[in-house]
Amino acid sequence: MTQIDAFDMVLFGGTGDLVMRKLLPALYHQHQDGNLPAEGRIVCLGRSVPDTAAYLDKAHALAKGYLGKHYNDADWASFATRIQYLKIDANKPEEFGLLADALNEFPKRARVFYLSTAPDLFAPISKSLAGVGLTKGNARVVLEKPLGHDLASSNKINDEVGEYFEEHQIYRIDHYLGKEPVLNLIALRFANTLLEPLWRREWIRDVQITVTEQVGVETRADFYDKTGALRDMIQNHLLQLLTIVAMEPPASYDADAVRDEKLKVLRALKPLTVEDVHTKVVRGQYRAGAVGGQPVPGYLDEPDVPAGSKTETFVALKAEIQTWRWAGVPFFLRTGKRLQERLAEIVINFREAPHSIFGKMGTPNRLVIQLQPDESVRLYLMAKEPGNQVRLRPVHLDLDFKETFTTRSPEAYERLLMDVIRGDLSLFVRRDEQRAAWKWVEPIIDTWEASTDAPKAYTAGTWGPAASSALLSRDGLCWHEES
Amino acid sequence: MTQIDAFDMVLFGGTGDLVMRKLLPALYHQHQDGNLPAEGRIVCLGRSVPDTAAYLDKAHALAKGYLGKHYNDADWASFATRIQYLKIDANKPEEFGLLADALNEFPKRARVFYLSTAPDLFAPISKSLAGVGLTKGNARVVLEKPLGHDLASSNKINDEVGEYFEEHQIYRIDHYLGKEPVLNLIALRFANTLLEPLWRREWIRDVQITVTEQVGVETRADFYDKTGALRDMIQNHLLQLLTIVAMEPPASYDADAVRDEKLKVLRALKPLTVEDVHTKVVRGQYRAGAVGGQPVPGYLDEPDVPAGSKTETFVALKAEIQTWRWAGVPFFLRTGKRLQERLAEIVINFREAPHSIFGKMGTPNRLVIQLQPDESVRLYLMAKEPGNQVRLRPVHLDLDFKETFTTRSPEAYERLLMDVIRGDLSLFVRRDEQRAAWKWVEPIIDTWEASTDAPKAYTAGTWGPAASSALLSRDGLCWHEES
Repeated sequence: MTQIDAFDMVLFGGTGDLVMRKLLPALYHQHQDGNLPAEGRIVCLGRSVPDTAAYLDKAHALAKGYLGKHYNDADWASFATRIQYLKIDANKPEEFGLLADALNEFPKRARVFYLSTAPDLFAPISKSLAGVGLTKGNARVVLEKPLGHDLASSNKINDEVGEYFEEHQIYRIDHYLGKEPVLNLIALRFANTLLEPLWRREWIRDVQITVTEQVGVETRADFYDKTGALRDMIQNHLLQLLTIVAMEPPASYDADAVRDEKLKVLRALKPLTVEDVHTKVVRGQYRAGAVGGQPVPGYLDEPDVPAGSKTETFVALKAEIQTWRWAGVPFFLRTGKRLQERLAEIVINFREAPHSIFGKMGTPNRLVIQLQPDESVRLYLMAKEPGNQVRLRPVHLDLDFKETFTTRSPEAYERLLMDVIRGDLSLFVRRDEQRAAWKWVEPIIDTWEASTDAPKAYTAGTWGPAASSALLSRDGLCWHEES
Repeated sequence: MTQIDAFDMVLFGGTGDLVMRKLLPALYHQHQDGNLPAEGRIVCLGRSVPDTAAYLDKAHALAKGYLGKHYNDADWASFATRIQYLKIDANKPEEFGLLADALNEFPKRARVFYLSTAPDLFAPISKSLAGVGLTKGNARVVLEKPLGHDLASSNKINDEVGEYFEEHQIYRIDHYLGKEPVLNLIALRFANTLLEPLWRREWIRDVQITVTEQVGVETRADFYDKTGALRDMIQNHLLQLLTIVAMEPPASYDADAVRDEKLKVLRALKPLTVEDVHTKVVRGQYRAGAVGGQPVPGYLDEPDVPAGSKTETFVALKAEIQTWRWAGVPFFLRTGKRLQERLAEIVINFREAPHSIFGKMGTPNRLVIQLQPDESVRLYLMAKEPGNQVRLRPVHLDLDFKETFTTRSPEAYERLLMDVIRGDLSLFVRRDEQRAAWKWVEPIIDTWEASTDAPKAYTAGTWGPAASSALLSRDGLCWHEES
């Protein structure tokens, strides 16, 4: 464990939703748990609030709601002493002197710049920070997605930020990588002998990665309609989860050892031809329906969605990894809005036993790593039912984090912020990974843009278009929730 | 599932402990659960009770206690109508005509003769049954252990019984094979892909089979002092459990397919030399101590134990199986009386992960199949503790039969009796298996008899003599309860 040194964490977009809803609560939790050094300051930047007192008023009111039972006055009061607000317009380089003055009070602290802003500000902010000498030494910059909307724009942002920060200073955050069950998957694979020998084509039939939401586009149509599910979810979160499932055992837990292995997976993804996009990728868009018993409008009727939009709110696809370990094992990815359940899970379907001595074949074994709504790892096996006959029945062995561990399971943002403070890059996306992921999805983007086809309609509250089920049934398989 | 036909079950030793404590309660349960056909009679034989009415009085009084909450008057009353008592002295062939008359009322029924008697009666009873024509056709004979006290005496009994019954009519009972977790081990191994690929020397470091008791020799010194733990437990129960763990996947669940595989294991056991017996087999005898907080006498002070007895009340040994699958994997067997806990379990210790990326190595994975005091299957894994660091912690995934299944888990004798009625030999010990088991333990018996060494003393209420721990620590291992 790296020593946690004194730090200044600078939150750009300090009055925004991400800071209020996720970052400040995460830092509060870590403060409350005693994980932050005494010398740890949180510098929040914004334009809309005049001073620290006003900022704290706003933050306090919101935090109380977000923290729920974890909130208490005394902890908040001591946490609040860490927070300093600076009224700085991130668009105005001339205002960065104020930030430099504040940070230069403590020149030896680790400096973290968290850019919780639109991506078109990443380069200007980096340049302004460099202009006042803040990018050197112990400085780190955290970039929130989206990093571009395709390979070219992503390259551009990375090139520009790269003019002012070295790669080892850049923390591209993907909060799915900070979730406990994902980290546990790494531990389960590499700290146990039980799984790794089975973790290959000989024993695994298919892998399914599902991240679904019940919510629709909400008030974000302006952003979402230009983005769509492929860019918003598949290119980053789902492909990242895929790399964790599929990577070879790294030689160490060092950031680059792990990221080298993840990169190898992304580069081994079988490139999609135009024909592949038509047959192996399903895009959908929700129509009016009902979610949780409540009627909801279709995507095209949501506020701010342009008439006739072809933006996909659902993607299902079949990926293949061209390695000795994974050849012939389909990886099915699926994400979407307005689906039947809010669910994030990784499902490893093992092959059937090669020969049954008990008459009818049992259900194949399955490992389910659930990230949402609950955090759990569940292993499905066949066991014998008590009784005189040998009657087999599927049973499951559970690792329920809430029940197993008495310690609170930290939110993804908590551990990722601590990783940044500690300077641990393991769970952040390296530039070449990002590039490889964009490169792989680009044929999908291109094919869709060139096509006159519309996304397949699906009724809100279902599991997506029928083509999603058909994608698997062609291989004689079905999605976990259908089986 | 084989149709359960009409049957007559004849219990020799009908007034004895096994019949009262185990067999009648088991049949009552199966009656209560509706598993017995209407045409199913239980014919109890004895000398000490005059008639059926008196027998039922005695059985009723005892059954109430043994059945506990499962007892109720109505079920007992209907069950009791199946029971008929015949006052027959098993030593007197001339009295068997009475039995023949009773059974010949229903000539087409399956006939089961359960010999719950001393083994020196097995041959005379078989001969008497043959004398009145009862061994033909649908007749089956169930033999309770001990079947001899060494290879020669066991051969003799089997030869003699074999004069009157064919091998396919002979059911050598080992009630450990009827226990649910043992049957579940077969199901877990062969109805799942998850275990079988790991079930070999590459992934398993050692196997431990423990069957321990807290009780001492009780009132059975007369029998026990001539027998000892090796003959009483190792030669049958523990070696049988070993075969279930170690056998190759049978091609079918047919009795002979399964027993062929078990036999192969027994024949592949590495023969023990005199030197091996001295170094790989530990015999112990308990001294005065305390069990569960109560002081208890030593074996030599128990009633009816001859002065200076060298009979072992504890055995621990290291067995090796000379096959491609198991070469180099020690199988440690251990059994004894007056030990710290009553425990029957099979522990599969997997090897350490070959390389740790998380610093310190974790605890190796382990599968524990517990038969007593609870029935469970528990898989020990390393998982990540929630929190910012990657801290590994052992966790376990449980299959608890009581919690998982709402159906009552039948006692071993229930299912084995039903198997006899159905004519299913899978879970009964074939003659060649028994011979192979005796053959393997014989060098131990011979070496001990030739030796002037006394058994190692151990204090009642411990886990046996220190040599038992040393047996494993020489291989860098330890017994499950010590780890």
